[in-house]
Amino acid sequence: MTDVLEHALIERLAAGLPRSALQLNALHESDAELLRLPGTGMVLAVTTDGLAEELATGLYRDPELIGWMLVTVNASDLAAVGAEPLGIVLCETLPPDVDPSWIVGLQAGVRAGSAATGLAVLGGDTNMSPTTNLTATALGLIRDGRPLTRCGCAPGDVLFASGSLGLGSAFALLQLKPELKHAMPLAYRPAARLCEGRLLRGYASCCMDTSDGAIATLDELMRRNAVGFRLETDVTAWTCEPAVTLARAVGLSPWVMHAGPHGEFELLFAIPAGREPAFLAHARRIGWEPLRLGRATREPGAQLVLDGHPATVDTGRVRNLFAEAHGDIERYIGLLVREVSLP
Amino acid sequence: MTDVLEHALIERLAAGLPRSALQLNALHESDAELLRLPGTGMVLAVTTDGLAEELATGLYRDPELIGWMLVTVNASDLAAVGAEPLGIVLCETLPPDVDPSWIVGLQAGVRAGSAATGLAVLGGDTNMSPTTNLTATALGLIRDGRPLTRCGCAPGDVLFASGSLGLGSAFALLQLKPELKHAMPLAYRPAARLCEGRLLRGYASCCMDTSDGAIATLDELMRRNAVGFRLETDVTAWTCEPAVTLARAVGLSPWVMHAGPHGEFELLFAIPAGREPAFLAHARRIGWEPLRLGRATREPGAQLVLDGHPATVDTGRVRNLFAEAHGDIERYIGLLVREVSLP
Repeated sequence: MTDVLEHALIERLAAGLPRSALQLNALHESDAELLRLPGTGMVLAVTTDGLAEELATGLYRDPELIGWMLVTVNASDLAAVGAEPLGIVLCETLPPDVDPSWIVGLQAGVRAGSAATGLAVLGGDTNMSPTTNLTATALGLIRDGRPLTRCGCAPGDVLFASGSLGLGSAFALLQLKPELKHAMPLAYRPAARLCEGRLLRGYASCCMDTSDGAIATLDELMRRNAVGFRLETDVTAWTCEPAVTLARAVGLSPWVMHAGPHGEFELLFAIPAGREPAFLAHARRIGWEPLRLGRATREPGAQLVLDGHPATVDTGRVRNLFAEAHGDIERYIGLLVREVSLP
Repeated sequence: MTDVLEHALIERLAAGLPRSALQLNALHESDAELLRLPGTGMVLAVTTDGLAEELATGLYRDPELIGWMLVTVNASDLAAVGAEPLGIVLCETLPPDVDPSWIVGLQAGVRAGSAATGLAVLGGDTNMSPTTNLTATALGLIRDGRPLTRCGCAPGDVLFASGSLGLGSAFALLQLKPELKHAMPLAYRPAARLCEGRLLRGYASCCMDTSDGAIATLDELMRRNAVGFRLETDVTAWTCEPAVTLARAVGLSPWVMHAGPHGEFELLFAIPAGREPAFLAHARRIGWEPLRLGRATREPGAQLVLDGHPATVDTGRVRNLFAEAHGDIERYIGLLVREVSLP
């Protein structure tokens, strides 16, 4: 498989750091860090995530969206390990001349995100510096000590998404194409799938959120489990409607809406075939309709169905293209389109 | 008492945020957030702290010091609540063209800080953005569920420091006065007082670290406990030797070395008079010699002894001067010197 550029940096940063004997997961194995709580059978989940790139590139401008996302990106990692939300701490670096109305908007977004996820704001740190930087750390609890991770999927397991995908890329593309923006209003305020994650702990063999887009998520799950994925449902059927419409408007295949590094915070997960009926019945009882995408395979690689035709995607290469294009979005899309092969 | 400008911002940021029923402390009441762990008698301590200002102003330049401080500032908050270290997560925002040798230095500092504190690095988040921003969140455990906080001090309690103070200001002043720097090499690599904090849980009525300087710490402890402090030991006796020397070299009274907003991560704490002998005996058994500073008083305000003469300091006003001087260090020192009144 193609090496992932981001992994190389993370592995370099982590090299030589002492690890805790209490930690259950190794690098890349779960969306949140998992720590056995001494003297109990419980596991603490902790995750930290910042919004640096989204702010520096102007992808997020509305302060309410920024506050919402600061909570949601972290809550989504707790969802992917099936944790019960405990609380969140915020680290806000603000310019000394920050507009007070911007702070009001930010806090309204944080408050809404906190209420939606049950992650009470426990405290934080405030710093002054010319460049805005917002990070948060969320804590969750897994009382029975059995978290979901990215690892455990076997060939034959059934691949699902918690909901339709592609909204993250659609939102990002619209910010970059202002001429399309007023023709196509799009509400981007993704919700962390916390209830669904907790339900999944009883059924799923692996789980990961689509914070980096569905292709990156599929790629990571394949790497962690040494499996491939054969998607049997046509891409348009699991792509959200605004993403399909937008892709058509700019003359792209809808699969491209899953390739970008900005996702929608749904969950991708696999269910062993024998547990599928019980899982679906349980999901139905909470009013949730997961999307069945396909199956894990012994053969490596990702196969999609595009307008009725099978196609393969080098998911590792797709993950690296954004870095390779050095932020040039036209070049990036040009590179992307060449990456799908129709046999 | 003079209102603290920083409190006003923090209270504005926290306004209207839902709080957790599990949280033991309110705003400003402890150095780390304290959360009851459901189904256990234990308390989880969590604290988040970033290095934005220290990096933006150039106060910290050596990447090894930066990595060390990223761990230490958070570990020190765990020390001040008497927690046992569990682990730390890092959120690193780095410029795309960051020098690889800078990263090597940073990670060496993080590794050394992690080894010194027992805070294993559990994981983190890495972002790319033009401005470097480093934040971390540390977790600790208080197994018996009885943390130290800033609250609980009564008039008559004996005030101590875990060690001599003033190194943080001395270091900051030297960075700003390069002409003095080569004449006076100063090693600034403060250690979090984790062992001392755990010992203090059995004795202290309040505790706080000197991350913002001793005057700010005294001020905060007075506010939380509605007491004053009468320091009976001359300032020079509890000021570290390099800070005394530096103050004399620039013609300032040594008390000024406790006024700056950059501290040395010692602990200030009070011991009820009846527990003092047992506390001192226990401290001696671990080879620790805390410095006895004075007593909490019913009368508000801070009294110092400067070169044998009593003096009062408006600690609240001193905390605000750095913001009032808008970073102009000469103006700041000028304002400071006027703040101490010799009767």
